[in-house]
Amino acid sequence: MRRIDPAAAPPDFDGAFVQSLEDLFKWRRDVRRFKTDSVSPALIDELVAIAALAPSVGNSQPWRFVSVETPARREAVIANFAACNAAALQCYEGERAALYAKLKLAGLQEAPVHLAAFCDHATLAGAGLGRKTMPETLDYSVVAAIHTFWLAARARGLGLGWVSILDPAALAETLGAPPDWKLVAYLCVGLPQEEHQDPELERQQWQPHISEHERLLRV
Amino acid sequence: MRRIDPAAAPPDFDGAFVQSLEDLFKWRRDVRRFKTDSVSPALIDELVAIAALAPSVGNSQPWRFVSVETPARREAVIANFAACNAAALQCYEGERAALYAKLKLAGLQEAPVHLAAFCDHATLAGAGLGRKTMPETLDYSVVAAIHTFWLAARARGLGLGWVSILDPAALAETLGAPPDWKLVAYLCVGLPQEEHQDPELERQQWQPHISEHERLLRV
Repeated sequence: MRRIDPAAAPPDFDGAFVQSLEDLFKWRRDVRRFKTDSVSPALIDELVAIAALAPSVGNSQPWRFVSVETPARREAVIANFAACNAAALQCYEGERAALYAKLKLAGLQEAPVHLAAFCDHATLAGAGLGRKTMPETLDYSVVAAIHTFWLAARARGLGLGWVSILDPAALAETLGAPPDWKLVAYLCVGLPQEEHQDPELERQQWQPHISEHERLLRV
Repeated sequence: MRRIDPAAAPPDFDGAFVQSLEDLFKWRRDVRRFKTDSVSPALIDELVAIAALAPSVGNSQPWRFVSVETPARREAVIANFAACNAAALQCYEGERAALYAKLKLAGLQEAPVHLAAFCDHATLAGAGLGRKTMPETLDYSVVAAIHTFWLAARARGLGLGWVSILDPAALAETLGAPPDWKLVAYLCVGLPQEEHQDPELERQQWQPHISEHERLLRV
């Protein structure tokens, strides 16, 4: 449950917090190498409640988090990933293909927690406010909730890996999701085997950091 | 510039940080009532560099932040919002329309900083990794960067308001954006006039909090 104290004074975030927050952004990382240790279901429940503090267009709160626990469903998700990943490999040639084949792009086998994050396109909440001209902001609200979950999880020592190499329609069917729910992300959660400041795709020479995109343009 | 220290040990985030982070999520808020006080350009530059620490699909870093400073461009954005907001009002009737008309949905006139956040759909960075089956993850990466900026700004006492009641094609033209850049958000940034824990749309009785959506489903 959200705990809001109407009498609370606004917090004054000090320099130490600002610095730790920057450390959190730097050390957040997308994790694909998990320990198989279990994670308390109560902790995941707490993180989902925190995710619901995210901003949403028109206060629509369209996030729907689903924990995928049935072994048959998990196996179907893993097969979905394997097929999509094999198809993706066919799009590369030469050294790129060799490098792609070596990358570990998901921790679906090892991660103790699998979460699907959907956006409910049928929700009446928010009464459409803010999304007449940019309806995609409904999906963006779910992304903000996922990112909130991710940061809160990392602050507690948990890692998260966002898997997007999936057929979203097949995945929604596997999970029995309502027809109006759009899959936004499939998430692996668990204790990370390793901690890094730099993205794995940088370390593996797939894609370097581009400092040009850290800079603001002015018009 | 990103400052990554390869020798740094992973941080150990303590209970006090975890609690302050939750306070940050609760007090983040979408701000539409700004003071007109100026904000240091160096601070905005710093926040854009921090935003670039966000996760991105295939490490594609597709965010492009543009500061809108020319008065003529700002006036065109304000006119764009006014037209879209008037059209949106026509979609409501009775009490809903009366309430919509009373809401303050943007702080474009007062906010000292206007930022447009685009997604570069022509980027070669990431070499397509992770977005063959879910290409929308490129846009989602920009949302994560915006949310990172938002949290870092709030930790420094700045407020942000996400304006989505805009014609995105007309806005891109106003700003002279390249044709492959998709507008993800238009942001007002400045010192807030007020601080709240609850969303303005809750206080104004537009849309209450829905505690059902804080809960995890299990399948």
